[in-house]
Amino acid sequence: MQAATAPNPGLVFDTLMAHQRSAALRTAIELGVFRAVGEGAADSATLAARCGTSERGMRILCDFLCIIGLISKQGSTYSHTPTSAVFLDPASPHSLHATANFLGRAEMRSTYEHLTETVRNGRTALPGEGTVEPDNPLWVEFAHSMAPMMAAVTGPLGAIVLAGRSGPLKVLDIAAGHGLFGIEIAKQHPEAHVVAVDWEKVLEVAHANAQKAGVAERYQRLPGSAFDVDYGGPYDAALLTNFLHHFDVATNVTLLRKVRAALKPGGISATLEFVPNDDRVSPPMAAGFSLTMLTSTGSGDAYTFSQLEAMLREAGFSNIEAHPIPQSPHTVVTGIA
Amino acid sequence: MQAATAPNPGLVFDTLMAHQRSAALRTAIELGVFRAVGEGAADSATLAARCGTSERGMRILCDFLCIIGLISKQGSTYSHTPTSAVFLDPASPHSLHATANFLGRAEMRSTYEHLTETVRNGRTALPGEGTVEPDNPLWVEFAHSMAPMMAAVTGPLGAIVLAGRSGPLKVLDIAAGHGLFGIEIAKQHPEAHVVAVDWEKVLEVAHANAQKAGVAERYQRLPGSAFDVDYGGPYDAALLTNFLHHFDVATNVTLLRKVRAALKPGGISATLEFVPNDDRVSPPMAAGFSLTMLTSTGSGDAYTFSQLEAMLREAGFSNIEAHPIPQSPHTVVTGIA
Repeated sequence: MQAATAPNPGLVFDTLMAHQRSAALRTAIELGVFRAVGEGAADSATLAARCGTSERGMRILCDFLCIIGLISKQGSTYSHTPTSAVFLDPASPHSLHATANFLGRAEMRSTYEHLTETVRNGRTALPGEGTVEPDNPLWVEFAHSMAPMMAAVTGPLGAIVLAGRSGPLKVLDIAAGHGLFGIEIAKQHPEAHVVAVDWEKVLEVAHANAQKAGVAERYQRLPGSAFDVDYGGPYDAALLTNFLHHFDVATNVTLLRKVRAALKPGGISATLEFVPNDDRVSPPMAAGFSLTMLTSTGSGDAYTFSQLEAMLREAGFSNIEAHPIPQSPHTVVTGIA
Repeated sequence: MQAATAPNPGLVFDTLMAHQRSAALRTAIELGVFRAVGEGAADSATLAARCGTSERGMRILCDFLCIIGLISKQGSTYSHTPTSAVFLDPASPHSLHATANFLGRAEMRSTYEHLTETVRNGRTALPGEGTVEPDNPLWVEFAHSMAPMMAAVTGPLGAIVLAGRSGPLKVLDIAAGHGLFGIEIAKQHPEAHVVAVDWEKVLEVAHANAQKAGVAERYQRLPGSAFDVDYGGPYDAALLTNFLHHFDVATNVTLLRKVRAALKPGGISATLEFVPNDDRVSPPMAAGFSLTMLTSTGSGDAYTFSQLEAMLREAGFSNIEAHPIPQSPHTVVTGIA
């Protein structure tokens, strides 16, 4: 965020060559380098043998992974950093490999080959509405891949929604994806019944996750577009996770009105979002998410709390509150119907 | 370089999405954003009008440029940082636009789409010997583009070569490229006569630069491969700038023997290189250059001083010294014939 006071040509070169970083990480995952490092600290020849690569290639790749802080080196021996041990070794329960494969998809990266045209036109260079086209198969892969990234968030979101609520609870999970948010509530609260809305193929993933979690008998699928399907209800709670950022303000207000109409009076709406500060350039990860929405949608954005609050208020919600999730780039914004 | 002690999932996401940074910078250059910011600090609507883009696209792009530290923002007004004012505004004499266009070439970036195969095989996925194939047109563009990056280096290199030398001086400039190193010596020393070796089309660029600098009458072209052409001589000094990193040690020793044979006894060889420390993972820019050599050559590397010293010694040079260039990732390594 803070610019150095002296002109820094190194920053320009580093930025021009930043694509090397993503490529090195993708390649290290593809070749099993983090698995190999996890089998024991080793030199490049040993790691090359473990991964079936050339020694020159492995040495230069591992040195580069050290330079960008992902693994470490003592003498000629490479070993895990705390970050690679926890998040990049496929043997770790917190491995982000599936998420990395999703974020590194050639299809999504290719949108950056058209960034100039995208900025000129102000919308994704993908066909139609980009990633929010009906039944986009991307969301099936998203449902399969993004669960690890959400692991730190499901518990806190469940606790926020359940705070002060008891007895039978009807929960609407809009754009459920992997379903883990609704499933977490069903796990935390034995009297919760979840109705999940998403594309039919996506709901197969969510349903399988509900079965794994042992809550399938309290998990109902409602396939279709969140904008068109009849939600039924009334509900005690509605989840809108990672959804509003795909659309413009007017579309979101229309959707939020529909959500509010499906809630009981006093029911809670919980929106999970990347929420930048009002300056829109901090914190970096939440603020930077706008660029992903520019390249992949027609009119989406990372909305500030003020913007989300205004949308919720216009849709008739009150008591609107922000709950930043610790150690996560996400914020839960709640409103009461 | 130093890994954080706590596991940091943000580093993983930041690395996975690092390609956004290069793309944002390339697009900002293509759209003239830094020129537009230089015309006066302005909001996104004004910058969009100056560059002929959508407001949404310009706002999100400029916010992202702020997040990665390239421009700054006060309220809704974007302005230059010291770095963007000096190195990214095309109105600045130090503008790196030409260099950025070279480093951002789709052809070079595409080698990173084949990085997994490259690490497996231990050599560039480009045909043949990659960028060092004879008469590769890349080097004509390099000669046109990389001069700005070398601006900080030519003077110091010239001073190192000329230190303690006077009178008529014959200088061999191997792989001369833009020619600026030999030309600088001709400018600093009116009795210097330069013979420049490179591909014929590349030498046209060097010759045009020699004419601009007013030293063309002391500038001679010797077209061909540095490995095959008869250097003539004997010379007082030989320049080998940004060249040895393309080849393996044995090839370099063969070349250095040929260079030494063309020098007078006491003549100086001056090699300009990215020289990492013995750990090979610092400093970041010099050490990271190895990855560029992996993706673009069959057997090149960023060599440490110990490695360069051993090559020069094996080729018969003595008094081998490293001269790091201040505020540059480059080091000049000299040896005496």
